[in-house]
Amino acid sequence: MKTGLSHLFIPGPTNVPETVRRAMNVPMQDHRAPDFGDLTASIFADLKTVYGTTKGRVALFPGSGTGCWEAAITNTLNPGDKVLMARHGQFSHLWAEMAKRLGLEVHLIDLPWGAGAPVKEFARILGADRHGEIKAVFVTHNETATGVTSDVAGVRKALDDALHDALLFVDGVSSIGSIPFRMDDWGVDLAVTGSQKGLMSPAGLGMLAVSPKALKAMESSTMHRAFFDLADMLRAHDGGSFPYTPPVPLLHGVKAALTRMMEEGLPNIHARHKRLASGVRRAVAAWGLDLCAEHPTLYSDTVTAVRVPEGVDAREVIRIAYERYNCSLGSGLGPLNGKVFRIGHLGDLNEGMCLTAISIAEMALVEAGARIKLGSGVAAAQEVYLMRPATPELRLAAE
Amino acid sequence: MKTGLSHLFIPGPTNVPETVRRAMNVPMQDHRAPDFGDLTASIFADLKTVYGTTKGRVALFPGSGTGCWEAAITNTLNPGDKVLMARHGQFSHLWAEMAKRLGLEVHLIDLPWGAGAPVKEFARILGADRHGEIKAVFVTHNETATGVTSDVAGVRKALDDALHDALLFVDGVSSIGSIPFRMDDWGVDLAVTGSQKGLMSPAGLGMLAVSPKALKAMESSTMHRAFFDLADMLRAHDGGSFPYTPPVPLLHGVKAALTRMMEEGLPNIHARHKRLASGVRRAVAAWGLDLCAEHPTLYSDTVTAVRVPEGVDAREVIRIAYERYNCSLGSGLGPLNGKVFRIGHLGDLNEGMCLTAISIAEMALVEAGARIKLGSGVAAAQEVYLMRPATPELRLAAE
Amino acid sequence: MKTGLSHLFIPGPTNVPETVRRAMNVPMQDHRAPDFGDLTASIFADLKTVYGTTKGRVALFPGSGTGCWEAAITNTLNPGDKVLMARHGQFSHLWAEMAKRLGLEVHLIDLPWGAGAPVKEFARILGADRHGEIKAVFVTHNETATGVTSDVAGVRKALDDALHDALLFVDGVSSIGSIPFRMDDWGVDLAVTGSQKGLMSPAGLGMLAVSPKALKAMESSTMHRAFFDLADMLRAHDGGSFPYTPPVPLLHGVKAALTRMMEEGLPNIHARHKRLASGVRRAVAAWGLDLCAEHPTLYSDTVTAVRVPEGVDAREVIRIAYERYNCSLGSGLGPLNGKVFRIGHLGDLNEGMCLTAISIAEMALVEAGARIKLGSGVAAAQEVYLMRPATPELRLAAE
Amino acid sequence: MKTGLSHLFIPGPTNVPETVRRAMNVPMQDHRAPDFGDLTASIFADLKTVYGTTKGRVALFPGSGTGCWEAAITNTLNPGDKVLMARHGQFSHLWAEMAKRLGLEVHLIDLPWGAGAPVKEFARILGADRHGEIKAVFVTHNETATGVTSDVAGVRKALDDALHDALLFVDGVSSIGSIPFRMDDWGVDLAVTGSQKGLMSPAGLGMLAVSPKALKAMESSTMHRAFFDLADMLRAHDGGSFPYTPPVPLLHGVKAALTRMMEEGLPNIHARHKRLASGVRRAVAAWGLDLCAEHPTLYSDTVTAVRVPEGVDAREVIRIAYERYNCSLGSGLGPLNGKVFRIGHLGDLNEGMCLTAISIAEMALVEAGARIKLGSGVAAAQEVYLMRPATPELRLAAE
Repeated sequence: MKTGLSHLFIPGPTNVPETVRRAMNVPMQDHRAPDFGDLTASIFADLKTVYGTTKGRVALFPGSGTGCWEAAITNTLNPGDKVLMARHGQFSHLWAEMAKRLGLEVHLIDLPWGAGAPVKEFARILGADRHGEIKAVFVTHNETATGVTSDVAGVRKALDDALHDALLFVDGVSSIGSIPFRMDDWGVDLAVTGSQKGLMSPAGLGMLAVSPKALKAMESSTMHRAFFDLADMLRAHDGGSFPYTPPVPLLHGVKAALTRMMEEGLPNIHARHKRLASGVRRAVAAWGLDLCAEHPTLYSDTVTAVRVPEGVDAREVIRIAYERYNCSLGSGLGPLNGKVFRIGHLGDLNEGMCLTAISIAEMALVEAGARIKLGSGVAAAQEVYLMRPATPELRLAAE
Repeated sequence: MKTGLSHLFIPGPTNVPETVRRAMNVPMQDHRAPDFGDLTASIFADLKTVYGTTKGRVALFPGSGTGCWEAAITNTLNPGDKVLMARHGQFSHLWAEMAKRLGLEVHLIDLPWGAGAPVKEFARILGADRHGEIKAVFVTHNETATGVTSDVAGVRKALDDALHDALLFVDGVSSIGSIPFRMDDWGVDLAVTGSQKGLMSPAGLGMLAVSPKALKAMESSTMHRAFFDLADMLRAHDGGSFPYTPPVPLLHGVKAALTRMMEEGLPNIHARHKRLASGVRRAVAAWGLDLCAEHPTLYSDTVTAVRVPEGVDAREVIRIAYERYNCSLGSGLGPLNGKVFRIGHLGDLNEGMCLTAISIAEMALVEAGARIKLGSGVAAAQEVYLMRPATPELRLAAE
Repeated sequence: MKTGLSHLFIPGPTNVPETVRRAMNVPMQDHRAPDFGDLTASIFADLKTVYGTTKGRVALFPGSGTGCWEAAITNTLNPGDKVLMARHGQFSHLWAEMAKRLGLEVHLIDLPWGAGAPVKEFARILGADRHGEIKAVFVTHNETATGVTSDVAGVRKALDDALHDALLFVDGVSSIGSIPFRMDDWGVDLAVTGSQKGLMSPAGLGMLAVSPKALKAMESSTMHRAFFDLADMLRAHDGGSFPYTPPVPLLHGVKAALTRMMEEGLPNIHARHKRLASGVRRAVAAWGLDLCAEHPTLYSDTVTAVRVPEGVDAREVIRIAYERYNCSLGSGLGPLNGKVFRIGHLGDLNEGMCLTAISIAEMALVEAGARIKLGSGVAAAQEVYLMRPATPELRLAAE
Repeated sequence: MKTGLSHLFIPGPTNVPETVRRAMNVPMQDHRAPDFGDLTASIFADLKTVYGTTKGRVALFPGSGTGCWEAAITNTLNPGDKVLMARHGQFSHLWAEMAKRLGLEVHLIDLPWGAGAPVKEFARILGADRHGEIKAVFVTHNETATGVTSDVAGVRKALDDALHDALLFVDGVSSIGSIPFRMDDWGVDLAVTGSQKGLMSPAGLGMLAVSPKALKAMESSTMHRAFFDLADMLRAHDGGSFPYTPPVPLLHGVKAALTRMMEEGLPNIHARHKRLASGVRRAVAAWGLDLCAEHPTLYSDTVTAVRVPEGVDAREVIRIAYERYNCSLGSGLGPLNGKVFRIGHLGDLNEGMCLTAISIAEMALVEAGARIKLGSGVAAAQEVYLMRPATPELRLAAE
């Protein structure tokens, strides 16, 4: 029988803060009541802040981020449209697959899983697209499968440099609300996220932010859509409501989460994620292991994918952590299965929690056969987390 | 400031039982953990019982019943397919609109709002469809907007009598789990419901049950779909999982609700709904008001739509109940707006709750200008609810 | 199997508002943490408002109101002290029994259960007590067993008129926070209440407010006490804390309840209780039944004790309400057992809830053999609760 | 602003398991309802198992363990009775103080704080007490302030060897339910515990188990008591109830906690506490620090009191852990203030949680000026916690 806290270090759903849990524990209410809009109004306002947009609009779709991928596509593009994407992890892979299924022609650039969005390659292709056949560029801001953050601003620049009119789609599911995202500054047209990552709530709600340019594109889009119709949704949102019954407790949760985020302040949230992630990476380095991400400039501050040593099965690490230590680590997805385990470090976290993850990962690694020194990762992370630098003398003692 | 319980008598979301609320109050967990399927297994099993199917399969789609309408269509039909539907209320109206949007050719029979599915007319049309051009017949089992329950078995018989091969689609959002539904017996091919009605949970999850025949149709369907792809979902369900992050608390809630339903027993649930509904209808009769439903054979045991008297605005009744008495009644939808208010009486209810609804409705009606006798509806319902018939002498006293 | 809401109409514990329930759902915390006092500070402040005291102090004792009865006695009196009390219901009876057990000499005036505190008799006795042998007068402000509110101000006047120095003890368990209580104005020296009545929280915390005079008496009291030592408690409270581990969730609950009470405003709370109680009493009158309280001036606005007709067993009424209608009514205590049932109408209530209680009581009464007219009590209460008087014409229709 | 989990490592209240938290989230109910006893029945049965008694009875007193200290005394002893106690920590100190206040003559043996109950000294005194003047011996089974577990069986043997008839009182607040306790085997007459330690619930309920001999003594006890009257309580318990309104949510919590404990099994619970405690002690040793407990035979498996090095203020360690790392450690009580900090490791815990406590304590110690090596304590504890011994080769790598 498992006892104690279940330690959750997958990159989503993330740990739900107490205030959010409490906020969700509500009796049902009438979503057609005159004061229902009070609930949604602050969500819309705070979400725009989180997205970094004042010009765009935000829609909430029951479902998930995956649903918003679909909403982004079906509301602004047309059957057969050509789109530019790169595949460098499970989530960029799945999004590309969806685009094909929905009838788009996908210009897909295959990269190693661990690479970032190929800004230069994109620039080249866009520059060569003299007739504007490419209608959209898709970027996975934070590839959750590999722990890689891509350069969205760079893609924007590539578009601008090429004077290209394509829409810029961004999957920010595991980035928005945790690391900087600047929708307006980066000229993002469609930005997708979900309730279960940086927004620290259960899954069940996808968010789609749209730029004025995307709203314009919506008018001429002819793809079939119903549940994910954005015009219907925005019209209902105008009245604080939804075209169908929304998941009310989750709205209360997201509202509480956003209130909490505004209280902490986005810059503080970002700084916290950076500091905590930095400790985790130092731990991995102390173990002598490699990250999946190819280069330090790509390191994600929300999730770290760790390559296990030769001869060790990452699935064993994950299994041991789960069964023996009541701890969920993220698995290697697709071709990374068995080769990588992931530590999610986003949302409602602190130093102690990251040290828990590291100390359990150490034990699970050792038990799975890795030759790493117990306590080594923890000590390396502690060095990062120590809040007041000890005196030199003490630092010495601590080494 | 409002005090006391918020009395909720809309036809969904319904009152969530304490056990369900508690079950949903969980920390997040890894939906890819090896034991995650323990959570979903009992849901699938119990849902099949609720649907009355042993041959079919059930899929859970994050979103809502509306999403499952879409899933039902896009997974089994083909662009341009002709389907037969009737419009006799807001929800049959919306489903028909969706069918058109998704590219179907809808043969739509318009009926008064208050009528049931036109079994004879359907029979006539199906009989005349010699070349099998109609690919599907859509029935709204319980039209939530009008409080009308239609004869699904009758439509089945019409199909059978015409030796017609069309798929039978049923919207059972406000019926399944509350009043008898026999998927296998009635030969229903696609049956849609949601978490927030008879399943006594918050909205956020739609359920789609599919017959073997529908599964067969799925193989040749060429409509675009992604989020609502049934094959993906069933494949994931085979492993107890989902193709994308599911709303975990809601799964716990639905599981607890189903456990509770199995404990009460479907026949007892149905009998309870009938008894409670009967009391509500007797109250309406005592007030001297009419139901929206055209005929007693159509009366729904889950929701009652009450026509207000001439000169009274149903919106006022609803507003007064909400603002003064902290009670949510259902509004008149579409053309019924202002003419009808609805009392939802499905899910986790008892006699006392129905009497609360009736007594508040009485006050709101009077305050909105209706000439009805205070206490008259309550007394009529109490007569129905009295559990042990009083002795004749006492009945006299009670009259 | 019981379904739907459990209707709770006992005079405590009362219905806990959602905000209070949510507030209590907290992880444990360190009651010795430097910021723990933030939790208790607002409780102390708001409680003083509720008690109507600026001069006195308030102590919170884990346990219950009964524990605070003991704390009141053992911290201010001395072994063998003579005290003046009346017995006119179960709770005044129990308090008198406690006083005897704790070694006081109780001058006990026995009255019919249904009478109020005998102000004139008290005045006579106090006037005759030339040597000040009576050290304290005990008053049960609201006798929960009989639904009787006594005249505390009258007892104060009797003391003053007799120039008597006795301490004035008041049991305000079922009054404080629901009906007017003016500790300073009435010169109350020790006032007891509990968390589970007007404070709308679970049981588990007793409150004792003490006047400066009582604090003075504390210094010379020689009774044995430990857990209920008031000096220890007040000293700990000075630092926002407790001498032993307190029930933390309950503190959060009481805090939330008080915040809510301040938001509604005490005068509004009192008016609401009066209006709701008035409706309940009109219902009883419409049934043709008597109250336990002897005279309208004694009617309690927090609980109504109803005498059942000859030949009807009140226990049956209560049993039927509980078993068949999922409704808890209060029982007749002590000699009133079988003769009386009680409807608690205090705390977080509204019109709809009172009508629920009345309508279920009607059915239970009829099923238990009472000859009352179904709906009659509901109609009478509705007349009271109607918020906007209908036009004369409509009133006619409503009669 | 604090983020993430609040890490709670005080020796009570302890971390409340999710199942217990959920169980407490209930609407209020009538404690006089006929089926209320269903709630208490399993509590009584399971508590007896936890206490290790089949012959004794258990009473639940709203309040706390402190209240049960008082109940134990006032229900079985007489004014002026002589009792034998030792003072070797804050809780034995407080209990002795209470005994004096309540009018007992306390033969108090003062020992260093860190010592255990003085079995030999007790044996000597009891042997010399030819006239049986000592009516009771008090033992603090687990001195929470010092992390010392005393030898209750040894005291029993001393009583038996001296053929002494004194009652054996045991404070098992921080032991019962976590480490072995054998009421019947050890001949304990009155055993006190509380809801907030091994029973993993909030504070608010004390438990008192009494032997047949104690019940006998109760009959002749003449001390004043009311709220804590055991006879009243047991009589009410016979009917599944309480003499006054009990804290219902807490009863649900304790019930759920006991159910969970029976599921885990007491031997497994004890083994888990031993293993987890062992890791914590190894960490302290790796830091080069001393325990407060004088000797390894006294080491408590529920709480470890750590002496900070010269020049370091333990209050600083605690402050830093709380303010910077959102972690509550136990403080040094009484004369140990500033010299000791405590890590509570009882109740619903696992390896990861203990490693969190250790890693945060390490950082706080370093920041407070201690010369300890970061990661050293964690590594030492991990060695203990590793569930499957790595191969020798791997162990080498891990060293």
